[in-house]
Amino acid sequence: MLARLLWIFCLAVLIEDAVIAADLPKPTDPTMASVLAESKPADWRPLDPENTLYVEFASGRVVIELAPVFAPRHVANVKALAREHYFDGLAIVRVQDNYVVQWADPESENPKLARQIQHAQKTLPAEFDRVLDPKLPFTCLPDGDVYASEVGFTDGFPVARDPRTGKMWLVHTYGMVGAGRDNAINSGGGTELYVVIGQAPRHLDRNVTLLGRVVQGMELLSALPRGTGALGFYEKPEQRVPIKSIRVAADVPAAERSNLEVMRTGTPVFQQLIESRRNRREEWFHTPTGRIELSNVPIPVRIKP
Amino acid sequence: MLARLLWIFCLAVLIEDAVIAADLPKPTDPTMASVLAESKPADWRPLDPENTLYVEFASGRVVIELAPVFAPRHVANVKALAREHYFDGLAIVRVQDNYVVQWADPESENPKLARQIQHAQKTLPAEFDRVLDPKLPFTCLPDGDVYASEVGFTDGFPVARDPRTGKMWLVHTYGMVGAGRDNAINSGGGTELYVVIGQAPRHLDRNVTLLGRVVQGMELLSALPRGTGALGFYEKPEQRVPIKSIRVAADVPAAERSNLEVMRTGTPVFQQLIESRRNRREEWFHTPTGRIELSNVPIPVRIKP
Repeated sequence: MLARLLWIFCLAVLIEDAVIAADLPKPTDPTMASVLAESKPADWRPLDPENTLYVEFASGRVVIELAPVFAPRHVANVKALAREHYFDGLAIVRVQDNYVVQWADPESENPKLARQIQHAQKTLPAEFDRVLDPKLPFTCLPDGDVYASEVGFTDGFPVARDPRTGKMWLVHTYGMVGAGRDNAINSGGGTELYVVIGQAPRHLDRNVTLLGRVVQGMELLSALPRGTGALGFYEKPEQRVPIKSIRVAADVPAAERSNLEVMRTGTPVFQQLIESRRNRREEWFHTPTGRIELSNVPIPVRIKP
Repeated sequence: MLARLLWIFCLAVLIEDAVIAADLPKPTDPTMASVLAESKPADWRPLDPENTLYVEFASGRVVIELAPVFAPRHVANVKALAREHYFDGLAIVRVQDNYVVQWADPESENPKLARQIQHAQKTLPAEFDRVLDPKLPFTCLPDGDVYASEVGFTDGFPVARDPRTGKMWLVHTYGMVGAGRDNAINSGGGTELYVVIGQAPRHLDRNVTLLGRVVQGMELLSALPRGTGALGFYEKPEQRVPIKSIRVAADVPAAERSNLEVMRTGTPVFQQLIESRRNRREEWFHTPTGRIELSNVPIPVRIKP
């Protein structure tokens, strides 16, 4: 009941609109295509080059937006690692079906061969959650969540909040990027990064530090052959997928950057987009659902017009 | 509030156990590994060869368990199509990232080249849901669902129920198999089948007929290159992935069958397994979640010992 009251408090207007839409779907309700077509330039934001990573493979580029608001120390450390070229020549070592892709130093367990860190940190204190700052924008979803009392979006990232504990945290949805760790909670730091490639593994929330999200190039990760070892690790060195380099976009010449824009998630247009996905009006759909969960909300990305 | 009462009604004992476990996690609580290790032969069931499909690719075999309790006409028709060799030589024509793999007759739009159906049906009335039969076993999940008032498992399949409307239906989770259709709701029939390879697309529930679930071989589908055309269709014929054959397991010589067993989902051991996933006790986990959603519950499959 408390959770229900919090919903009503945080979302009174949106819930009301939503209930009306669910009860009386109108053929004139927007579709995602119409929302995108009618969006204005101000509904989109460029990626900040200082908080964007380019992961370069032989197959192409994966673009990651970093989340310093949620994991400031991990983001700073991953950028420092990229800037000292720590990742260049490492490889994807693990692809576990319906779970994660992970890259790392394949020789990390061998003191003689392990890649040395120059200036960055090998490990950091965990950043599993942070103080709930009510001044941060938060577009709350109206249909609840199995795992958290409130879920929605803050600055383009999927977020859960718990007003009772005064905490907020990034959520494991498709494409989210985290810092692998060993059993000790402070044993991660960003030298090994994983990306969610399947059903949102929400049991990982607040158990491992998330620090960003793939905004382009997921298909270069999600379609890789699955590893046949325990936890999806590749069993043979030749199965690994080499990383040519990881660069902070700000360090890449402007002409070589991916000029992407992400839809702003604190806008009326993004709320229309959520509504267009809660009640699909495309001709194919027979029964609009009237509900949506966090992991099924797309965050549109486009090449800057 | 009605939904809440229904939960309590259907799950009183399990909820009580679960709340205790969530509030006071015990290091002695089972893990999935311990649940599996302690399971008895009677906790497992063999697949019924008459309701099992083998989809043969050059890369290996995908095993599908059919769900005649939920889609009797579609299951009968897909078996009839398999038995007249309709699928043999067709191909995967669509792989949409974080969504579905789909196979079909690539020439279906060409009257001269389209594969002809001999005895089976080209289309069937939709089987989006069925009457809620309280006599069917149902292992209810205790943590709710964003899309339906009750979710759980019936005979190894993920199921949603709505006591208010007296309906129950199969749910789109990872590995579920459905019958593609055009815009008309009765335009499917099983000639084109799709498999969910990403985040559970729950907005498809009750919009398209589900008829089975992949129990082995998902990695042969989920790791395929994504199609670059609209909706993930392959743009060039040579990108398609040929299907060698689809057979009803009963028609395959016993020595060539995959002797798989699936954990029975109506058992105390399966409830222990759910609990072991709601509160992970493995050493790596820092904060047991105390919650689980339908799509994150694994249904164990093993080779018959």
